[in-house]
Amino acid sequence: MTQDAKPARPDPVADADDAARAQARALLQDARHAALAWTDPATQTPGISRIAFGLDQDGLPLTLISGLAPHLAALQAHPDCAVMLAADAEKGDPLTHPRLMLRARAEFASPQDRAALRAHWLKGHPKAALYIDFPDFAFVRLRPSSGLLNAGFARAFRLEPRDLS
Amino acid sequence: MTQDAKPARPDPVADADDAARAQARALLQDARHAALAWTDPATQTPGISRIAFGLDQDGLPLTLISGLAPHLAALQAHPDCAVMLAADAEKGDPLTHPRLMLRARAEFASPQDRAALRAHWLKGHPKAALYIDFPDFAFVRLRPSSGLLNAGFARAFRLEPRDLS
Repeated sequence: MTQDAKPARPDPVADADDAARAQARALLQDARHAALAWTDPATQTPGISRIAFGLDQDGLPLTLISGLAPHLAALQAHPDCAVMLAADAEKGDPLTHPRLMLRARAEFASPQDRAALRAHWLKGHPKAALYIDFPDFAFVRLRPSSGLLNAGFARAFRLEPRDLS
Repeated sequence: MTQDAKPARPDPVADADDAARAQARALLQDARHAALAWTDPATQTPGISRIAFGLDQDGLPLTLISGLAPHLAALQAHPDCAVMLAADAEKGDPLTHPRLMLRARAEFASPQDRAALRAHWLKGHPKAALYIDFPDFAFVRLRPSSGLLNAGFARAFRLEPRDLS
């Protein structure tokens, strides 16, 4: 458990294979919510939120954030973030269920972009019609720089952005 | 959505009432896993993991972490972290389901502490018997400094440590 002992250990994370890529893409396609880790600009320490999740027209992770949510200002100040996606409502031990962790960078959508994103988002999130036009809601892409698929106990794979779309 | 506009808005988060405290404590009691936001010591940017979750004998949040997990070294370098707990496997829209977010500080348990924590942990996590004695696993308390209960759309409450135990 010491830093010194680390180099002698086998790497517990394998390079992605086709099955890992397919599993990661399925999690991305199916997720309608996610957990987001962000940096609090007031304290420089981590915050965490549940977020709405979808993909944009090009398959990039996308969320829609209320201006009341603490992570909106946090992502404006510190765009680097991390996202966790998992399949919903499975039985058994959630620590053995597949989940995908992404390191990502938040990119706020431009006003010009908004109409197209709005129509696309509503296809996957019809209930968002209730608030999607509130002026303080923002579309934010979460562009991945890397991924880690945990496919169960002692089964982990690293993914590159090209593995994810 | 600008920083300037913020002071004019009503605070969307209310002080905790008895119902909010009871709901937060129920989430803490029932959770067997959680999402953890941490700071990557290599990049100073956020990481996120699914963790095992329980309470210690005094009701403090507790986790058991493998030495292979990236958040073990991260919490050693940066103990400040955030935890999100939610009820499992509910139907409907997860964005309207109750969840509890904690700002917390990681405290690694001492070797003297381990025997008592081990026996206590196994009561709530019997499957952990498979790996609890691996030498690279560490018990880590996640001592809350504050909490935010999101009890559904536009229902949020702030909690103090005394509200959580």
